Amino acid sequence: MVKKTWQMLTITALTLSLAACQQFKELPDPNESSDKVSNESTQQLSDDYYQAVVEDNNYEVNQTSGLTVGPTSQANTENLEEGLYQLAQGAFPTDEYLLKEGTAISEETANNWLGTKNDDNPEGLNPDGYNASSRDKFEPRYLNSIIEYDLMQEQDDGSMKLGGISIALAMNESDTFTSDDDSEESVEIKRDTQKAKGQEMAKEIVSRLRKQDKYKDVPIQVGIFANAPSDDVGGGTFISEAMASEGKNLDDWTEYKTDYIVFGVDDAPNEEDSEAFQTFQSDVEDLFPQLSGITGVGRYEDGDLEHIDVTINSQFDGYTETVALTQRTMDSAENLFNKNIAVDIEIISPEGTRAVLSRPAGADTFTSTIS
Amino acid sequence: MVKKTWQMLTITALTLSLAACQQFKELPDPNESSDKVSNESTQQLSDDYYQAVVEDNNYEVNQTSGLTVGPTSQANTENLEEGLYQLAQGAFPTDEYLLKEGTAISEETANNWLGTKNDDNPEGLNPDGYNASSRDKFEPRYLNSIIEYDLMQEQDDGSMKLGGISIALAMNESDTFTSDDDSEESVEIKRDTQKAKGQEMAKEIVSRLRKQDKYKDVPIQVGIFANAPSDDVGGGTFISEAMASEGKNLDDWTEYKTDYIVFGVDDAPNEEDSEAFQTFQSDVEDLFPQLSGITGVGRYEDGDLEHIDVTINSQFDGYTETVALTQRTMDSAENLFNKNIAVDIEIISPEGTRAVLSRPAGADTFTSTIS
Repeated sequence: MVKKTWQMLTITALTLSLAACQQFKELPDPNESSDKVSNESTQQLSDDYYQAVVEDNNYEVNQTSGLTVGPTSQANTENLEEGLYQLAQGAFPTDEYLLKEGTAISEETANNWLGTKNDDNPEGLNPDGYNASSRDKFEPRYLNSIIEYDLMQEQDDGSMKLGGISIALAMNESDTFTSDDDSEESVEIKRDTQKAKGQEMAKEIVSRLRKQDKYKDVPIQVGIFANAPSDDVGGGTFISEAMASEGKNLDDWTEYKTDYIVFGVDDAPNEEDSEAFQTFQSDVEDLFPQLSGITGVGRYEDGDLEHIDVTINSQFDGYTETVALTQRTMDSAENLFNKNIAVDIEIISPEGTRAVLSRPAGADTFTSTIS
Repeated sequence: MVKKTWQMLTITALTLSLAACQQFKELPDPNESSDKVSNESTQQLSDDYYQAVVEDNNYEVNQTSGLTVGPTSQANTENLEEGLYQLAQGAFPTDEYLLKEGTAISEETANNWLGTKNDDNPEGLNPDGYNASSRDKFEPRYLNSIIEYDLMQEQDDGSMKLGGISIALAMNESDTFTSDDDSEESVEIKRDTQKAKGQEMAKEIVSRLRKQDKYKDVPIQVGIFANAPSDDVGGGTFISEAMASEGKNLDDWTEYKTDYIVFGVDDAPNEEDSEAFQTFQSDVEDLFPQLSGITGVGRYEDGDLEHIDVTINSQFDGYTETVALTQRTMDSAENLFNKNIAVDIEIISPEGTRAVLSRPAGADTFTSTIS
């Protein structure tokens, strides 16, 4: 009669609202929208974020996001999108530009470009060798996905003008050769090849855009992103970036040495960081042995740890337990992680997110939200 | 070859860490731990929260949490735990007391008390009439669950002393009569009955605790919680509370008029609040028609809106889309919801929590975390 259930009958707001699932509305044609739009913008969260451009009271969803050649992982996708956002911030200051989902590369164009090049698809950027039936003529598809942001500038009359374009090319780390007898072989694409092929495609893309009047003189930034294998929890990174200034093509490439390290799984560039994370982990787990696990991903730039992303899985979601766990977590993180490292911590229970803790680089204290 | 997938192959930290799922450690016997414990406490998040007591470097999980008579909902459980925390705060200031999961009522004791009273279980607080085979002799089980917190005070020598006990009794809103031919009838328990039965059981519980030397003189607070039906997204509320001062039993009962209102489903005490939420909802949905739904639960005290809890379900989890959605949401919420109302907003995608926005009552601005 009396039942001990940690996970009880769940009637959450989620189930209700998912039931009322809404379909897509038809998106306006981006090529038609430049004259008659009513511009608006969202409030800026802080100088770290761009204001978003809203046209016709409708936020345009990115046309090419989610369009991929071969499988990728959520970690790749998240690093790709956040990384391009950061690259754009470096070239186009957030207080001078507003951000709009890319419109220069339509869904149809991206589909053609991501395809293999042949008579039916002369614009394909991936090699036709992918369709070869013999292994020695086979060539993997190097390009996995394209995303693009438009950087807009507000004019004195309130209208918006395109001030820059940021493009990311995500490169496959492998592709699959399927032989006539349906046996499959995974063909690795090395980091150097990802970079060389990506830079080649980037130049071709800029020259294609330059042929259109509206993009003839716009600064175009391109970043080359190397996907990590799908089972890599850390995800891929940007490896190279260049800017095509007004009317020009890409020239000087900047190389990036970003690494995502899963603590306890990958070797960290700095042994002390691994030890600090391990101490943090046992600090929290000693007190709460009923946790299902703590994972941490560190982002390194040129060998320096810049960001730690922690996920704590709790089997329980009692309120007092969550408060105590949040307190302990914050306490340990403040003691163990250097102030110049940004830290984000999420505490998750079977019922969903219980608490979010966050400390930007350079800040003294964490902010926390318990739900 | 080119696939459009909104939800891609998901390899998250979650799956990895769940695989490393850890079993419970044996919990120390709370009755044995009073002499030889090494006390510690977690850092305090703010004056709004109690510091948690940690003994033997092990946070004791609540023994009676999750122990229920008949089904309940996550919304009931959350309101029950947070509500008791708030009741305790009213009686035992957070800067004078530390909080410990309850030890006065063990799991075994709670099991006996939650059972029906008969020769095998003389301590049962629920009526034996539950087991009757005829409908006219049937009596529902009124008590669904018990939770308890210990409020501790730090002594000059660093040791901890029990300074107060807070107990919540969660009352069923219905129970099921099963006849001989296995047909089932749901029997409703009215609000007045919940209150009367709860107060009766509360007095019995205090007198049982008073018989033990260690609880003879401790202030004991008891709150009566009325569960809402399992399909009520808003969840139940505390309806009555009393304090048994040192050595005494409960006397003056305080009545609470808390209501949880699901906007768009329930009638709000104040029509303007419903309209404000509706405007907020369409403000956000107009701009992002691809959302799967926005739900809001308002907490009313004596007819006044004190807290709004919003869940926004997004089909997408693009970074730029999340930033734009967070900006719009914050903008609308700041414009539409009065500053004296606390607001918590969570943006969820198929991949998990994307953003958390929070504004305490009386604050001017929201804090936000985008993940």
